[in-house]
Amino acid sequence: MFAFKLNKTCPHTRARAGELTTAHGTIPTPIFMPVGTLGTVKSLTPEDLEDVGARIILGNTYHLYLRPGMEVIGQFGGLHRFMNWSRPILTDSGGFQIFSLARLAKLTEEGYAFQSHIDGSRHLLTPEKAVEIQTAINSDILMCLDQCTAYPAERQDARAALELTARWAQRCKDHWQAATPQQNGLFGIVQGGMYADLRVRSAAQLAAMDFPGYSVGGLSVGEPKELMLEMGAVSLNALPVEKPRYVMGVGTPEDLVNLTALGADMFDCVMPTRNARNGQLFTAGGTLNIANARHREDPSPIDPACTCYTCRNYSRAYLRHLYKTRELLSYRLNTLHNLHYYLSLMADMRAAIMTGGFDVFQRDFFARRTPVSP
Amino acid sequence: MFAFKLNKTCPHTRARAGELTTAHGTIPTPIFMPVGTLGTVKSLTPEDLEDVGARIILGNTYHLYLRPGMEVIGQFGGLHRFMNWSRPILTDSGGFQIFSLARLAKLTEEGYAFQSHIDGSRHLLTPEKAVEIQTAINSDILMCLDQCTAYPAERQDARAALELTARWAQRCKDHWQAATPQQNGLFGIVQGGMYADLRVRSAAQLAAMDFPGYSVGGLSVGEPKELMLEMGAVSLNALPVEKPRYVMGVGTPEDLVNLTALGADMFDCVMPTRNARNGQLFTAGGTLNIANARHREDPSPIDPACTCYTCRNYSRAYLRHLYKTRELLSYRLNTLHNLHYYLSLMADMRAAIMTGGFDVFQRDFFARRTPVSP
Repeated sequence: MFAFKLNKTCPHTRARAGELTTAHGTIPTPIFMPVGTLGTVKSLTPEDLEDVGARIILGNTYHLYLRPGMEVIGQFGGLHRFMNWSRPILTDSGGFQIFSLARLAKLTEEGYAFQSHIDGSRHLLTPEKAVEIQTAINSDILMCLDQCTAYPAERQDARAALELTARWAQRCKDHWQAATPQQNGLFGIVQGGMYADLRVRSAAQLAAMDFPGYSVGGLSVGEPKELMLEMGAVSLNALPVEKPRYVMGVGTPEDLVNLTALGADMFDCVMPTRNARNGQLFTAGGTLNIANARHREDPSPIDPACTCYTCRNYSRAYLRHLYKTRELLSYRLNTLHNLHYYLSLMADMRAAIMTGGFDVFQRDFFARRTPVSP
Repeated sequence: MFAFKLNKTCPHTRARAGELTTAHGTIPTPIFMPVGTLGTVKSLTPEDLEDVGARIILGNTYHLYLRPGMEVIGQFGGLHRFMNWSRPILTDSGGFQIFSLARLAKLTEEGYAFQSHIDGSRHLLTPEKAVEIQTAINSDILMCLDQCTAYPAERQDARAALELTARWAQRCKDHWQAATPQQNGLFGIVQGGMYADLRVRSAAQLAAMDFPGYSVGGLSVGEPKELMLEMGAVSLNALPVEKPRYVMGVGTPEDLVNLTALGADMFDCVMPTRNARNGQLFTAGGTLNIANARHREDPSPIDPACTCYTCRNYSRAYLRHLYKTRELLSYRLNTLHNLHYYLSLMADMRAAIMTGGFDVFQRDFFARRTPVSP
């Protein structure tokens, strides 16, 4: 099953609070989805994820298709049981990773021909196959195969990419509908590069196909922040109000607040998890680098106001020691903190929307931020 | 406080069950101590350690002295609060690591002069300093500085090492006693290489100094298994029956059973934790290598009879996938399993001793073992 309900819309911004219902449970929105590339959110167990408030995670189709492969995941009836995660899973289509990781990727009307970045084996990912793989993963929310536009891009290239994305979206929807029953939701992906009219065109094409939900792709690919927000606003505005809207691969805490104000419901990004492993930790006041020498003997937690497991139990001095000695526990404790920060931010935003105070929340959020310090 | 009480002695072997009481709690013996080299048992939190049944852990003085250093640990009043572990901690003296890791180590009557393997800084570790560092760590059980004999070694070298070890043991005890009150226990370490009469001589010298406990050092340094057990037996027999006996750096599950039968009370070894990180997992039937292709689609747990978190929740197929993709969670799930195996083995041995059936336990244990398979 798949359904989306709007609970409340902010009277001052375009922020919305809703509920997304899937076969694996209901998710409050706006929501952030931790990235579990290879069937694991790096360093964490499913219980850890639940403890930090994760309601849904993301799996990468390209990676899972190559390792462990569909025969293995198929043995378990999908990714949930394979990785022991009982809550919802969203998968991307694999297109973006082919674009950024695979060798000798070749794009045709048929799909992506590519060679594995692991062993060089040859594969062809068509829109139909992307749906089949995500169905075998038993994903709750599937993405249509799309063509992401690089930045910068000529208008004609951005245009060609969104047109191909639309044709592939129709093929994905046809293939998905032919499989009965559809227990999951299939999302169309808005492209159009940094051209506002192309974004609107792409959104309209997809809306005409009546998808269960819509994604905004092709953002945070190197463009200036203002342009990202402008294209995000244009894309979100052009999408049906009653359907969930997912901004892919974004972003910083500031981005999440700004895009939620523009009407986004769902986010994913490697930033909280990857930066944790690089020692960058998020706090209400900004970010800190745990490797910094000033933390060497500091008995205080990362953030005195934080209630995460890491902040309740460990000092900056200990976390710095673990990080400097490359101890495995460092990655886990840092990841727990950063995900707790991201997921608490989303929960706080939802609460603010529900009580009608999101505009005040947004203003206070930015007032608390200090410039990034080491 | 520090006390040792014998609860029961096996009527058929020399195995004993006892209780070791420290300022941080009472430990049932025989016991295995997971190794937490740098103030963390690699990949695990203190809660994880408690879940697998860890009652006491080991810290490495050499490593902690270099990183994070005594100023940092001193800020926290010791290692317990620094790493958030409330149960007992045992520390080694640092001598063995200087011998095996440090650069330009030079041994004199005064102590070990060496250069850090991290930054080349120069240090001098005397018996007095070894006690001071371990006291600053707030260790519950301290080791005297000793000279470990390599294998093979000439008799005269083994003799010289045990005599120096005895003189250093006296200096350690004097320095430790001068510090009042002694809330902890100081152990003397038996050396003597692979010479039975030297082992007896070393044990007698230390026993005459009346330590709270005794360690058997210099085993598992490359000698054949039979010789290890013979020297272990000789050393253990020569030690006072009413004091705890700790066999350092040993060993395989088979070693733990055999040495417990010979009267050992305490063990530590990197084997369960290090081998876990290399994909080698322990089961009642022997070991398995999780990287093996035969586990690729296997939905069964590592060991169907095991009750650890990993075996209750994950398949061999998933664990193989995590291991092959070098996912951080692999190290943690494997470590949890191996430590659970080691600590359950110790608990089972203690129960068998208490009910008078240790000889049967030992026989059954070896009957279940199959040759190591990949």
